[in-house]
Amino acid sequence: MSPSASALTESAVAIGSGDRRALARAITLIESTRADHRHQADSLLAELRHQRGRAFRVGITGTPGVGKSTLIEAFGLHLCRDLSLRVAVLAVDPSSSRTGGSILGDKTRMAELSRHPSAYIRPTPSGGTLGGVARRTRDVMLLCDAAGFDVILVETVGVGQSETTVAAMTDAFVLLVAPAGGDELQGVKRGIMELADLIVVNKCDGSLEAQARSTLADYSSAMRLIRPTSHSWTPHAIAASAISGLGIGELWESLVALRTARNESGEMADRRISQDRAWFWEEVREQITNRMRTDDRARALLNDVEQGTLTPTQAAADLLKNL
Amino acid sequence: MSPSASALTESAVAIGSGDRRALARAITLIESTRADHRHQADSLLAELRHQRGRAFRVGITGTPGVGKSTLIEAFGLHLCRDLSLRVAVLAVDPSSSRTGGSILGDKTRMAELSRHPSAYIRPTPSGGTLGGVARRTRDVMLLCDAAGFDVILVETVGVGQSETTVAAMTDAFVLLVAPAGGDELQGVKRGIMELADLIVVNKCDGSLEAQARSTLADYSSAMRLIRPTSHSWTPHAIAASAISGLGIGELWESLVALRTARNESGEMADRRISQDRAWFWEEVREQITNRMRTDDRARALLNDVEQGTLTPTQAAADLLKNL
Repeated sequence: MSPSASALTESAVAIGSGDRRALARAITLIESTRADHRHQADSLLAELRHQRGRAFRVGITGTPGVGKSTLIEAFGLHLCRDLSLRVAVLAVDPSSSRTGGSILGDKTRMAELSRHPSAYIRPTPSGGTLGGVARRTRDVMLLCDAAGFDVILVETVGVGQSETTVAAMTDAFVLLVAPAGGDELQGVKRGIMELADLIVVNKCDGSLEAQARSTLADYSSAMRLIRPTSHSWTPHAIAASAISGLGIGELWESLVALRTARNESGEMADRRISQDRAWFWEEVREQITNRMRTDDRARALLNDVEQGTLTPTQAAADLLKNL
Repeated sequence: MSPSASALTESAVAIGSGDRRALARAITLIESTRADHRHQADSLLAELRHQRGRAFRVGITGTPGVGKSTLIEAFGLHLCRDLSLRVAVLAVDPSSSRTGGSILGDKTRMAELSRHPSAYIRPTPSGGTLGGVARRTRDVMLLCDAAGFDVILVETVGVGQSETTVAAMTDAFVLLVAPAGGDELQGVKRGIMELADLIVVNKCDGSLEAQARSTLADYSSAMRLIRPTSHSWTPHAIAASAISGLGIGELWESLVALRTARNESGEMADRRISQDRAWFWEEVREQITNRMRTDDRARALLNDVEQGTLTPTQAAADLLKNL
């Protein structure tokens, strides 16, 4: 049952007009594993591609325990309530590959923000490789963009490869850290600090405030040692608290300043083009592997690998020899 | 300058006899970006493939600050000194993609272990994607295996995709955690706990001992809620301290028990076969992408993506249409 082209155009129009149910139906298509759904989703995304590029896409990362959800909720509420912006929150987290979700589950997270009419929260798609999760997130981001959201916050966890992935699909990248002793700074890998356009020292309240201030100073000096990746923006660190509201407004103002600087220098457009280029290659890899899984020659070579007659590298070279 | 087949056989023999300089030369080939070096490395690895499968490959992960290096050093010294085993320590860490290494650098890590004649420590290869780093680590692991190392410890950092990668290339997987309050347990994602064959609560000494004991109890109960991935081994948690030596011997005994159980049930062999299968597919993806980067049709489609005429997904489908 493949819908007619006009039905697709209809849902493209509905999504473009901000119809929540059309958006939800489209996301269901994207997350489906059925080939016909996937095909419908691809056609829909192709129709919507001209509506891209209006949303401001912000990646937010931080290790577990830094208070990411709480800060994102406070930040999202500020954008929705005080600035009348429409906000989507998506998550990229392939670390729970077997059952999905953290131990306490995603349901209770950001309860207040999720009830706000201008907010849309999409929980972590369960299961899949980082590549698969990233693909769906990128597609959902495109839908949210077409649906008229002003800001898309893409949340990711940890000190791994998912930050690089999220940084590669967003316009700005924020690293959240907790107050810590000076010697713990080594725990944050230089690579992640280098990805960050902004560092937010969270939990700057109550008994942790003094420590947070000293952590802020530590990060500020550390950031001065790092060569900026961008010629139009110099990263800096700010302090924040979801409890007192400290830094919430400043975070948005910094992001807006970054967006203006990157737009004016042309870096934003360049960045989006190079992101699309990388996305293309990922799609090529993904689609080729899907096809080859059912290839007879590939199966025979795989058998040789299992028997120990060939190394995986040799077998792969053999498979591609006649391409 | 491609060496003759006999020269390759010669280095294969030298590596097999435990010649350190031959091993070092081979690793240099593997880490080289020159195509002829890569080709030599592949031939050498193909020659050595029958010498695989003797080393016990153990993955170790933990977020920054849990004391990974210190514990690995104490553990490695126990294996070398007390048990006369030969130990290689490799690292998988693509998080620092721009400059490589953590802020404090890798040089001062595991100073004592690195001086022991039975130990071989290979620092994080700098730069590259997770796939690239993983490929080189897998190749170096194969060399170390052929060179007669008894135990290969593969260290990785963080709460991301690199754990899944390391778990997929080792025989056993150990998660290191620090003493923490009960509510911080949620910070460790279920997905990573599910990968773990053993959890080690580190820093069980001095003022942290009581907290470590209570963390141990927390993890022990949490692990009972998780369906084991293996039918021949039930994961458990132990306490350890690099200072007092607590748990160091127990860690090795547990790993040996796991190896025996997996060998006897046939799970070890199955696991290695399915790991080789996954490796084959990664190689196929990698090699295909490398070829297509210079393809004219691919370039033309990429141009359409940059102009916004096609989405990356459409362009990829177009490229592969006639394959």
